[in-house]
Amino acid sequence: MKYKFHQRDVISILDFERDELEYLFETTDKILDSYIDKKMHLLDGKIIALAFFEPSTRTRLSFEVAAKKLGADVISFTSEESLSISKGENLADTIRMLDNYSDLIVIRHRLEGVAKYAAEIAEKPVINAGDGKQHHPTQAMIDLYTVRKLFGAIDGLTYGILGDLRYGRAATSFIYGLSIFKPKKLYLISPEALRVREEVLELLKNRNIMYEEKYNTEDVIDQLDVLYVTRIQRERFPDPMEYERVKGSYRVTRELVKRGRRELKVLHPLPKVNEIDYSVDASEYAAYYIQAKYGVPIRMSLLILILGGDKL
Amino acid sequence: MKYKFHQRDVISILDFERDELEYLFETTDKILDSYIDKKMHLLDGKIIALAFFEPSTRTRLSFEVAAKKLGADVISFTSEESLSISKGENLADTIRMLDNYSDLIVIRHRLEGVAKYAAEIAEKPVINAGDGKQHHPTQAMIDLYTVRKLFGAIDGLTYGILGDLRYGRAATSFIYGLSIFKPKKLYLISPEALRVREEVLELLKNRNIMYEEKYNTEDVIDQLDVLYVTRIQRERFPDPMEYERVKGSYRVTRELVKRGRRELKVLHPLPKVNEIDYSVDASEYAAYYIQAKYGVPIRMSLLILILGGDKL
Amino acid sequence: MKYKFHQRDVISILDFERDELEYLFETTDKILDSYIDKKMHLLDGKIIALAFFEPSTRTRLSFEVAAKKLGADVISFTSEESLSISKGENLADTIRMLDNYSDLIVIRHRLEGVAKYAAEIAEKPVINAGDGKQHHPTQAMIDLYTVRKLFGAIDGLTYGILGDLRYGRAATSFIYGLSIFKPKKLYLISPEALRVREEVLELLKNRNIMYEEKYNTEDVIDQLDVLYVTRIQRERFPDPMEYERVKGSYRVTRELVKRGRRELKVLHPLPKVNEIDYSVDASEYAAYYIQAKYGVPIRMSLLILILGGDKL
Repeated sequence: MKYKFHQRDVISILDFERDELEYLFETTDKILDSYIDKKMHLLDGKIIALAFFEPSTRTRLSFEVAAKKLGADVISFTSEESLSISKGENLADTIRMLDNYSDLIVIRHRLEGVAKYAAEIAEKPVINAGDGKQHHPTQAMIDLYTVRKLFGAIDGLTYGILGDLRYGRAATSFIYGLSIFKPKKLYLISPEALRVREEVLELLKNRNIMYEEKYNTEDVIDQLDVLYVTRIQRERFPDPMEYERVKGSYRVTRELVKRGRRELKVLHPLPKVNEIDYSVDASEYAAYYIQAKYGVPIRMSLLILILGGDKL
Repeated sequence: MKYKFHQRDVISILDFERDELEYLFETTDKILDSYIDKKMHLLDGKIIALAFFEPSTRTRLSFEVAAKKLGADVISFTSEESLSISKGENLADTIRMLDNYSDLIVIRHRLEGVAKYAAEIAEKPVINAGDGKQHHPTQAMIDLYTVRKLFGAIDGLTYGILGDLRYGRAATSFIYGLSIFKPKKLYLISPEALRVREEVLELLKNRNIMYEEKYNTEDVIDQLDVLYVTRIQRERFPDPMEYERVKGSYRVTRELVKRGRRELKVLHPLPKVNEIDYSVDASEYAAYYIQAKYGVPIRMSLLILILGGDKL
Repeated sequence: MKYKFHQRDVISILDFERDELEYLFETTDKILDSYIDKKMHLLDGKIIALAFFEPSTRTRLSFEVAAKKLGADVISFTSEESLSISKGENLADTIRMLDNYSDLIVIRHRLEGVAKYAAEIAEKPVINAGDGKQHHPTQAMIDLYTVRKLFGAIDGLTYGILGDLRYGRAATSFIYGLSIFKPKKLYLISPEALRVREEVLELLKNRNIMYEEKYNTEDVIDQLDVLYVTRIQRERFPDPMEYERVKGSYRVTRELVKRGRRELKVLHPLPKVNEIDYSVDASEYAAYYIQAKYGVPIRMSLLILILGGDKL
């Protein structure tokens, strides 16, 4: 199985087979069991380039910590540099530069397809740390791994996926990720303007994943094992009044989750702003801080499998 | 004594006892004697998070150098990230993220009390690298250590503390730090608008520290062993004319210091703009460049004592 | 020869003798042959300060990679810090701080002479990573080394140097660098407003370097071994109409280079914007991506020779 990861690009969660993800999760288990508190030297002498054209503190720092815990060095842009690159030279030349300087490139960009384009230019492996509105494969890996840790399996559970399902890349990647497993049912909960795109629904149909679109979490809360929450941004609404009208319905409160099953777990890719009430944070339902703890070990596993070959 | 530092938060210089500071200074002596030019591996595998919500090149870099000389890795925000965090998610979630990613958090923030709040949330130790208008404990440690190196002791000396004593956290922390020792006398020299706050004077009274408030350095220059200079910012004055009227009186010139005792030493936490005339820089009185050299070893000691336990 | 580099400042390519450069190139050959893929530990425990007051992603990252591959740690400013330093404290104090924190300072600044000034203040060696309109010595080293690798020698070749020869520091440094060798002839190709400055021509005369000033590349393309291209910036023209009139003549196209000799190689210090047509990138003529690959090994050599003494 190791050879399937060796020097591989990671562009979309859909590029992965179920057994590949399971191998990644088992590797992550090993890291959490035995290595997370030590500095491993598996990637000594390697250089990881973090090319964040769109800022993301959590994702950037978690890759940086993962790389450093493995002994690798990290290079990255300053804010001003990423801005001036965006305005100046063509992206291909920037990718060539990073390909020249590093052993692996982690890229994040506002625009769809940039990670794939970078992977075509670079000889070194490229990891997509989020681009466009669909793909954030390492976040999906973290989210799936979290479910597996909380429930022992990803299959057979009922999921509510809440928020901006149209433009939110974490939500879309999670849906894509679930389609690789056998969930019992997905409830796709969003306002009209932020419905899941047709191509995603097509994929669910093709893969025989049961789903239903909903406007309200209240209607399904008692059926859910997992409620995956993402933010609804005001700017997405053509009519601001429409945003004001619906925003309350997509806020997760203590009252809401208490109407759920006892086993219900609330996930969120973070950062959250006010889409989850603070009163939920300290409850048994909140799993997003646990989820956040898997960012580093999942990314460590991925870096080891891609760069380190058979050394673990 | 070591156990008193182990995994400890450093929020205010007032949290420290005299013997604790002396232990820290002795550790710093050892580092300067034997280790400063080598890479020590006491903190190999540790990750130090530098969370500077308010920029400070010197303080940030001196923590970074201290950490790296000890073998630790460092993570920090880009300018754009610290800005977007300030606007976006709640501070508690940011602290939880850093707590998750690192072994120790160094924090700097414009607002009073943020370091203490961070320490309450984080399981890992938190060092205050300056918050609000009162607390900058590691700067006070450097300043006290500088006096101890220059004069052999902190007790028994006469200090002039000059500048913005109302809003300047370095000056206030130095006054607090001196209150832990037995100075002969403190002259607190500032314009009316930037007087020491009442609570600081109360503390000096309670600790039986002799002090006197002054408007002019000229009046006391011949009595001082140490003149601690800080900047007076125009923006602090409600009336700009008042600033123009007084600013000359708080500028340290060669003429001024030559009227002092031969042993007089001028300290400044740096960076300075124009509050000390360049002609003073090359004189025997100037001790601020020496003082600056103690930033790294003091912070190395602190990191070792907090994280390294008994390994030195 | 090693002792000539030990703890040396690198301010201008003109500070170097031919045999010194050849020694540097031989060291670079060794690194490329044997070490480029491994982490070397020659500079373990050293700290390199990157003081980029003017942003330059390529140059900064290539120094950072060079330092890290040698085992050194790197400290640098955030964008916001370099800005606030520029506005705040005097440069001398900033240099003293970096001198205190690091073992070598790499500096880049918009203004002429800043690197030299820094070298006068700092006890540690200073490398000029570009200042003012003349000096970028490490870029010239890379460019000369590239020619040597491509043609086996720098002597005896005909060079076209194209673009902004008045304000462009890479072009000027390359001309200076060539003057240390024995080129057959230099064609200096630029619009009237961006002619080579008189002092540079004087130097070429004094060193008996044959040169000719030209307005059009077409006129000389068939005589060139090397065409060194740099960007012409609109802002340099007092009259924007003049820029619009001439810009086409200074763009390198596939048609242009195909009229050159078969051995013709096009160099460019990068980043390029649109001064070279994309159709040239994939041609045999394009040598700028090869040239870019020498940035790290040249800078590794320089760091080793300056800091590492006789350890290679």
